Amino acid sequence: MRRDGTRIQTVMDEIRSRITARMYSPGARIPSVRAMAKAEQVSVSTVLEAYERLAAEGALTSRPGSGFYVAGPSAPLALTELGPKLDRAVDPLWISRQSLETSSDRLKPGCGWLPASWMYERGVRKALRSAARSETSTLTEYASPLGHLPLRQFLTRRLANFGIDAPFQNIMLTESGTHSIDLICRFFLEPGDTVLIDDPCYFNFQALLKAHRVNVIGVPYTKSGPCVESFGAALQAHSPRLYITNSGIHNPTGATLSPVTAHKLLKLADSTNLIIVEDDIFADFEHTPAPRLAAFDGLSRVIQIGSFSKTVSASARCGYIASREDWIEGLIDLKIATSFGGGRLAADIVYRTITDSGYRKHMEWIRTKLSSEMDKTLSALEAIGMKPWLHPKAGMYAWCQLPQAKDAAGIAKACLAHGVVLAPGNAFSQSMCAGDYLRFNVAQCADPRVYEVLQRAMDGPH
Amino acid sequence: MRRDGTRIQTVMDEIRSRITARMYSPGARIPSVRAMAKAEQVSVSTVLEAYERLAAEGALTSRPGSGFYVAGPSAPLALTELGPKLDRAVDPLWISRQSLETSSDRLKPGCGWLPASWMYERGVRKALRSAARSETSTLTEYASPLGHLPLRQFLTRRLANFGIDAPFQNIMLTESGTHSIDLICRFFLEPGDTVLIDDPCYFNFQALLKAHRVNVIGVPYTKSGPCVESFGAALQAHSPRLYITNSGIHNPTGATLSPVTAHKLLKLADSTNLIIVEDDIFADFEHTPAPRLAAFDGLSRVIQIGSFSKTVSASARCGYIASREDWIEGLIDLKIATSFGGGRLAADIVYRTITDSGYRKHMEWIRTKLSSEMDKTLSALEAIGMKPWLHPKAGMYAWCQLPQAKDAAGIAKACLAHGVVLAPGNAFSQSMCAGDYLRFNVAQCADPRVYEVLQRAMDGPH
Repeated sequence: MRRDGTRIQTVMDEIRSRITARMYSPGARIPSVRAMAKAEQVSVSTVLEAYERLAAEGALTSRPGSGFYVAGPSAPLALTELGPKLDRAVDPLWISRQSLETSSDRLKPGCGWLPASWMYERGVRKALRSAARSETSTLTEYASPLGHLPLRQFLTRRLANFGIDAPFQNIMLTESGTHSIDLICRFFLEPGDTVLIDDPCYFNFQALLKAHRVNVIGVPYTKSGPCVESFGAALQAHSPRLYITNSGIHNPTGATLSPVTAHKLLKLADSTNLIIVEDDIFADFEHTPAPRLAAFDGLSRVIQIGSFSKTVSASARCGYIASREDWIEGLIDLKIATSFGGGRLAADIVYRTITDSGYRKHMEWIRTKLSSEMDKTLSALEAIGMKPWLHPKAGMYAWCQLPQAKDAAGIAKACLAHGVVLAPGNAFSQSMCAGDYLRFNVAQCADPRVYEVLQRAMDGPH
Repeated sequence: MRRDGTRIQTVMDEIRSRITARMYSPGARIPSVRAMAKAEQVSVSTVLEAYERLAAEGALTSRPGSGFYVAGPSAPLALTELGPKLDRAVDPLWISRQSLETSSDRLKPGCGWLPASWMYERGVRKALRSAARSETSTLTEYASPLGHLPLRQFLTRRLANFGIDAPFQNIMLTESGTHSIDLICRFFLEPGDTVLIDDPCYFNFQALLKAHRVNVIGVPYTKSGPCVESFGAALQAHSPRLYITNSGIHNPTGATLSPVTAHKLLKLADSTNLIIVEDDIFADFEHTPAPRLAAFDGLSRVIQIGSFSKTVSASARCGYIASREDWIEGLIDLKIATSFGGGRLAADIVYRTITDSGYRKHMEWIRTKLSSEMDKTLSALEAIGMKPWLHPKAGMYAWCQLPQAKDAAGIAKACLAHGVVLAPGNAFSQSMCAGDYLRFNVAQCADPRVYEVLQRAMDGPH
């Protein structure tokens, strides 16, 4: 047992390092005293004392009735602390770096994509051969500002299937889904603005928003979408400029939005100038489409973005933004200024691949395979004591709780040393309230070593 | 002749519209009274009166001895005014939009790239066929955080030829040269920081920096590089964080940096914490390499960036950043947060193309062809009264002055109506002092219609 003084120091050090790492940017509100006490498993009075000492030092400022905020500016922008790869802190970029960096002999149940062997490789090869015979301009020239017309026309038809009316003039291609969100943030946000995200949500939303120096508020995610009460309260309290969410299948929970939640959210947003960004990258994994906010709203305050990285190729990357026409015009300028006309070849390859007759069949196979892997993975995880939050209807993610409130970050570090990359819950959680959760990618969980290494780590000192 | 009151109104309207269009962002210093008087061809007292009325309205603030600044914030971020395509104002994005948007039957002496028929098309086709046979991961998986290793190793060797010691661990691939600069700006700059650019310089530097909400100071460019005295004075007066410049062949002037200027610049920077970004995208066009700041400096305060869009393909785009190792680590995080691991296929295609035995020969052919087109274009332009600023040693750009201080923006608009896209000088000039210059791309000037349409426009009312 640590003495109280040590505990206070520990909390202070933790907050300081998060500020240094820009996990909390200047002006941002830090977790409430209660949330921090829960996350760090210390008493409320310990956290309060730590916060007040930091305020006395000038690292935090306190606003009565509102909470504690990070003081002053610092530079240069560091999204995380530097450090040796295996030792780096488990922050929102930890999973990305580990998944992208580790060699292919590692097992990656924590990563966010399908194994290469599942991808529609035959289609991509065919597309490349066919691109090799295309006209010169396709091979060497810049893309037009909106991007490859046939792909935009394809997207218009595809969006129509989800009830979204998006003429191809209102669709701009980008380098990726992440690039789409980044452009939208740059277009609408000023430093210090407030953005709502789901809690938990895709960890890279947090990393991205840190780069925008904005204030981020998490809205608890329920089994049928964001908690409507919390969403309404956040609208009232913070006048957020953006809300960024997944449509279709939610990352990391695998939950889907219900029509009633969708309707209520948009009704709450009615009297505000909130803009909603709906990230639709998992659309092709759904058996039956969940409701889309963009369909309910008619692309008035909702912007839909997506990409093909999850189903076609993350090597030939291409994303899109479907939005109101007046916003598209400004987004084009911003895209040119910050990346010029890019990704023409990738858009061409993606278009050739998804319009190939085999693609639809391949996706049918993927959906079926994901269903059976979901069942197998959940059974195997339950067998070693993990508790699934829900049984997802579709997709590749399973969100599972460790037994006895074990520390997922510690377990993830232990497993990494044995060649298994996991995705610990707090990397997804703004409030750091998912410390005993892990996200599993069921498509990456077939190897029994995943469960062996995990079990050993769970039996360890964490 | 307009009355004085009308002239004052005109200047006020002009400044207001530039503020609305975010050409001048909040907090930015607007052109000096003298520069504006010269650009608008009105008297100094007219401009002074206009500025003071705007200050009275609250649109500007005046700082005695320093000049006039844009007041308060506005939102959302608009890099330019919206408007019909042909009518839009000639701003730094005008040339990009016109060049990227217009159909291929237009003549584009103003655009910044080689005609598709000049590109190493055979090599790109071969690379695509060969990529179609590569391993699955190349086709479908995300890139590693630093990007394709063989291409980074190639860059290490290539940079060594310019005297730059850049181990491949210090090189990160990006989506494009523009993306490289954007990442660097996001990493180092806070809104309100000051950045130096050349005046004139590549117009997209200005558009990009506007998106970063920073204060931009132009340093006059001479025939041997930036004016050393102005550079020193700007360092003293503004403590800039970054200086962004071209190495090798300067865009738009075609001038090259002399060793003595390079040495003096770095000496001036010695006692400051200025970071210099050297954009090296025209390296392959040089017959004999000009000095590189990165070579003199040893990648200490200089970061070199580049891409292959000008010589290999603007469709399969790929750029790079060569920098100090401690900066690379933070840049990786920022790249993942804002675009995840992208562009793997493009990097693969580029690598296959440039290591193909035919590429070197093709570039030899390009350099020879550019030399002869440079001579022909300059002769043809001189024949209709244009005056070249200098005869460039290499590259595709010729920077030429119109006779009788004619207005390049007006002439560019007139020519656009006749299917010819020009690049008017003030789009390149921070101080708007190049209103009677045009940049010509000699590789796009073979068609005699270019000179016919230009001559007709010059004889018109401008």
